[in-house]
Amino acid sequence: MISVCILGSGNVAYHMANAFENSNTVTVKQLYSRSKPSAHFTTLNTNIIHDFEALDANCDVYIIAVSDTAVTQLANHSFFADKFVVHTAGAVALTDIKTKRSGVFYPLQTFSKDKNVDFTNVPLCLECTQKEDYKMLDTLARSISKNVYPVNSDQRKILHVAAVFVCNFTNHLYHIGETLCSTHQMNFDILKPLIEETATKVETLSPFAAQTGPAKRFDQQTIDNHLSLLAEKNQIDIYNLLTQSIQATHERKKL
Amino acid sequence: MISVCILGSGNVAYHMANAFENSNTVTVKQLYSRSKPSAHFTTLNTNIIHDFEALDANCDVYIIAVSDTAVTQLANHSFFADKFVVHTAGAVALTDIKTKRSGVFYPLQTFSKDKNVDFTNVPLCLECTQKEDYKMLDTLARSISKNVYPVNSDQRKILHVAAVFVCNFTNHLYHIGETLCSTHQMNFDILKPLIEETATKVETLSPFAAQTGPAKRFDQQTIDNHLSLLAEKNQIDIYNLLTQSIQATHERKKL
Repeated sequence: MISVCILGSGNVAYHMANAFENSNTVTVKQLYSRSKPSAHFTTLNTNIIHDFEALDANCDVYIIAVSDTAVTQLANHSFFADKFVVHTAGAVALTDIKTKRSGVFYPLQTFSKDKNVDFTNVPLCLECTQKEDYKMLDTLARSISKNVYPVNSDQRKILHVAAVFVCNFTNHLYHIGETLCSTHQMNFDILKPLIEETATKVETLSPFAAQTGPAKRFDQQTIDNHLSLLAEKNQIDIYNLLTQSIQATHERKKL
Repeated sequence: MISVCILGSGNVAYHMANAFENSNTVTVKQLYSRSKPSAHFTTLNTNIIHDFEALDANCDVYIIAVSDTAVTQLANHSFFADKFVVHTAGAVALTDIKTKRSGVFYPLQTFSKDKNVDFTNVPLCLECTQKEDYKMLDTLARSISKNVYPVNSDQRKILHVAAVFVCNFTNHLYHIGETLCSTHQMNFDILKPLIEETATKVETLSPFAAQTGPAKRFDQQTIDNHLSLLAEKNQIDIYNLLTQSIQATHERKKL
């Protein structure tokens, strides 16, 4: 049985604690939150503490799941000097943690308070300073997920940027789609099957092979018609830039 | 029983013929393709003809599923003068078809040759010139899909643009994600659960509420770090523009 303490009161801390509670090989001894966490934390069975001094000194792994900007300061606390401490931040390098036994336990997923996540599918990106700690970290990861990857700090930074493109920016395109629907008296529901299919398609086809649309076809008439329908500058700018980028990507196939 | 003829040899024609073949209320009399269609059309049971003169003159509905640029010429053929002819093009207005009984049967979905589509979920956007034809069009649509919407030509044009944002442009962001992975020796598989979750999230949350990431948080340090990691100009330009657009959208929430 691996014992863990989780530090944090955000969505990652919550969903991770929840996932570990359903694991047979891991026990969550404590969840440390400086202030009182949101109400949904009360659904956890874990012992929630607010006093750092009360942190159990005999845990196998301490998981720091606080905001990216707060990770380094907390992880470098003298309490962790001889302990195995890992963080969940995509953008914080392993070398930023100066303790002897540090590591990374980065879940590449988007978490919301109000939306359950099946942790089994969440990719967990692992890294640690001491080779002999990796096995425990791997066991810990596989107790909640079937997608476990060794990822070094440079790669992880790239994943963090890639996630901005495929998640944050994609979601903003959905927002534009919704805005277009609502300003023309249509329900956003009408676009949802297309959104779902577009995401599902790249499970089996590469995004390059899956690309369709007027930009890829170099169909300038449709592109011009579309631009004439857009009223907001940011929509026009995004339409132009992404069209150019698709055409640069597929240029060799131009007729 | 409604009888239809489908004209076209592309992905829409194929998947639609396939869906109608599984319907109990519709029979596909013929599929007209000027040239020999791709090999997978042989999996259809429908009678495929190549001679326009051989087109059955007694069909209830003729569905023109050819490329957007070819729709108008074909639909305005004198053969259809007194027939109920509908097209599947998102960007062609109903008024572009000059026959008496015209209509639109627009499936808002992305179709590929190599990827099966569950037509039950495909939104079908309907419109027709003669009020009395709408009922049959609606019956036809409901025989293969549970998402049927009356949509006028102006709205349909907007949907066509919205689809470019949520499908074509989103897919291009996936392509950038894949490129970032492959240039740093990582498998694109690692991003797939995030892609899937991002799409699934907006089933229950609005894209505005679902927005996360450094742009929304106005986290300039992470934004700068990300920009320093991007090597290609189109990636940097897209990162900057979408970040600005997200920040303009969420500006009121700025701390």
